[in-house]
Amino acid sequence: MNHNEYMTKVGQKARAASSILAAAEAAQKNQALATIAALLIEKTTWLQTENAKDLQAGKEKGLDDAMLDRLTLTAQGVENMADGLRQIAALADPVGEINDLSYRPSGIQVGKMRVPLGVIGIIYESRPNVTADAAALCLKSGNATVLRGGSEAIHSNKAIALCVKEGLEAAGLPGECVQVLESTDRALVGELLRAQEYIDVIIPRGGKGLIERVSKDSLIPVIKHLDGICHVYVDAEADLAKASDVAFNAKTHRYGVCNAMETLLVSESVAVEFLPEVAARYATKDVELRGCEKTCAILTDCKTATDEDWGEEYLAPVLAIKIVDDMADAIQHINRYGSHHTDTIMTQDYSKARQFLRQVDSSSVMVNASTRFADGFEYGLGAEIGISTDKLHARGPVGLEGLTTLKYIVLGDGHIRQ
Amino acid sequence: MNHNEYMTKVGQKARAASSILAAAEAAQKNQALATIAALLIEKTTWLQTENAKDLQAGKEKGLDDAMLDRLTLTAQGVENMADGLRQIAALADPVGEINDLSYRPSGIQVGKMRVPLGVIGIIYESRPNVTADAAALCLKSGNATVLRGGSEAIHSNKAIALCVKEGLEAAGLPGECVQVLESTDRALVGELLRAQEYIDVIIPRGGKGLIERVSKDSLIPVIKHLDGICHVYVDAEADLAKASDVAFNAKTHRYGVCNAMETLLVSESVAVEFLPEVAARYATKDVELRGCEKTCAILTDCKTATDEDWGEEYLAPVLAIKIVDDMADAIQHINRYGSHHTDTIMTQDYSKARQFLRQVDSSSVMVNASTRFADGFEYGLGAEIGISTDKLHARGPVGLEGLTTLKYIVLGDGHIRQ
Repeated sequence: MNHNEYMTKVGQKARAASSILAAAEAAQKNQALATIAALLIEKTTWLQTENAKDLQAGKEKGLDDAMLDRLTLTAQGVENMADGLRQIAALADPVGEINDLSYRPSGIQVGKMRVPLGVIGIIYESRPNVTADAAALCLKSGNATVLRGGSEAIHSNKAIALCVKEGLEAAGLPGECVQVLESTDRALVGELLRAQEYIDVIIPRGGKGLIERVSKDSLIPVIKHLDGICHVYVDAEADLAKASDVAFNAKTHRYGVCNAMETLLVSESVAVEFLPEVAARYATKDVELRGCEKTCAILTDCKTATDEDWGEEYLAPVLAIKIVDDMADAIQHINRYGSHHTDTIMTQDYSKARQFLRQVDSSSVMVNASTRFADGFEYGLGAEIGISTDKLHARGPVGLEGLTTLKYIVLGDGHIRQ
Repeated sequence: MNHNEYMTKVGQKARAASSILAAAEAAQKNQALATIAALLIEKTTWLQTENAKDLQAGKEKGLDDAMLDRLTLTAQGVENMADGLRQIAALADPVGEINDLSYRPSGIQVGKMRVPLGVIGIIYESRPNVTADAAALCLKSGNATVLRGGSEAIHSNKAIALCVKEGLEAAGLPGECVQVLESTDRALVGELLRAQEYIDVIIPRGGKGLIERVSKDSLIPVIKHLDGICHVYVDAEADLAKASDVAFNAKTHRYGVCNAMETLLVSESVAVEFLPEVAARYATKDVELRGCEKTCAILTDCKTATDEDWGEEYLAPVLAIKIVDDMADAIQHINRYGSHHTDTIMTQDYSKARQFLRQVDSSSVMVNASTRFADGFEYGLGAEIGISTDKLHARGPVGLEGLTTLKYIVLGDGHIRQ
């Protein structure tokens, strides 16, 4: 069986399973999630044995410590996976929800019903826990899943997938609701991205290279996250104590995350007062500062930023700083150099807050809050499969609702069009 | 200037205009729409002179009567265009609407704001009125537009576009909010479909060939409508008088529309009673019937359907008829052969209605109503740019809301992530 035939077979099974899953009641899906969680715990030792094969192969291939660390499945890691599944089971089921059902002048009632997308293809790297997390979110939202993990985690992923299959079947659902591709041959990814007859949406999770490659090659719509170049703008009317706290938190709370601030914009009128104070706080964390000319004139320990710095996602203790004329200048900078992810204004001025919220073209726009809040859990989605920087369909943190769509429903009593 | 340079210039202008338009208030957009409507009426004679050039060229190229008819701009046609613009002006502005703003445990408030998509590319054929209709819907929803009409309508389209530009500028908005591509060279369409830096979504309007080509070549997300293979299923528990009315209306009210019924499914238990009666009504309209074997055994004046008939969008007085075992059989047929557009069950049974609504995977699912109701006006959207058979983003009739997206907004008071 060649890759194309194999993918067709997987796709057909996924499509068939998705119809059953779409009609499944919440209790059955929750039972499956609970059973999978229990199975993962029960089989911790076996999962770790399988994981050890991947770690061994990884060491032989010379993977670095950070990659091996991401690949490792500890007993605590298995516990966390199981916990994640139980949390997803506890969320409300979005499928079947009917909204805005109202009578039209013709006498028909028109409304919208939330329904699964169908079959979701997930392409990811390293971390084996994605196998369980992604499968669980798709399952709860009524979607069948085709998973393609990295070759370095194939034994771990297959082992987790076996627990998922067993749990699904124990709950009376088809095991094919979640399928992990057998081979990690790269050509098979190509087949997956061209299987538009069977797959409704592709979600890539991993580094920028993977996401760009998937977006470029996919014939199927992609929900993706590219860069997180987030800004905090400290306005002339900011409460500078709050601004300092937020600017410090947004940069230093965690460095390697997409919602960390990468560029600090400061209104010229408060720069002399604000910058030295916040720079001293950054110094305690050894954050490297790269400022515009005006910034460097105020701060002594500051490198000169180049134009590239404004479009850089450092994911590191590095911060670009620019002094801007006013809010309009800040908004222009954000919409031009940012990645439409998350941007904050610090201001006590009502009108400016209102304008900033409207005019900044990002998936999350904030007033007086740290960019670090851009997150499915903080927003109350319960869980997230990623943060979309796309505009269509899902924008910002994507939870269960982002994995569904709305169809129209119409109720009549023999109504005909006149 | 080659096509690529030209497209870059158009794209940059569109992007710049879209920022201004996104922040424009409803009153200003409505004023532009009203002014454009007045200008179209005022310049009717000139529009018809320009239109005559297209008609002359069309006759020389040997376009058939139907195509020339679609191309013709009558005085009444101009009136209708202007009316359409005034109706769009009267609709509520969806932009800036804030929903679900609520406090989270951290103390921040999280909600969603409806915002424009940005720049919309529209690729269409023949009918010059699309130039005004599409531009108006995009304008009201705060999006800049790049229009590429057919070569056969270039003079008409450019003339309408000039009125649009003049109206925009009179209202203080950039004329570049709506741009019509100068050249109708096919290679320029390719450039448009690759301009993902400047265009956020592509909407093709026209025949299936155009839509398939655009979907295949576009690097930009496409909102599209492919087939309308709609079904009416007459259930064992149907009120047969209502079923006859709906089945007759869904087929014969208009033939060439996407929401006309193409296949009638009838439960075996009522087929002998139902089919001869409804067939007699179809006979009054000379509708050609193509039935499964069982149907042909009941109806005398009925051709035998082939497997191709179940997947055919006739757009003509032709109807495929199939007798099914039960509702499950009907749902399976619809999900397999249908185009996920619009499907109806005729039944008086509560549980079956509930199951059909949940299990049929179409953009509109109906109970006891004609498929002909699947329409933006009937659904209360006020106007529609098309009916999407996609699942992501917009599904079913697409009105102003489908041309917008939601961003998250977060309000805090110096809140930081712990």
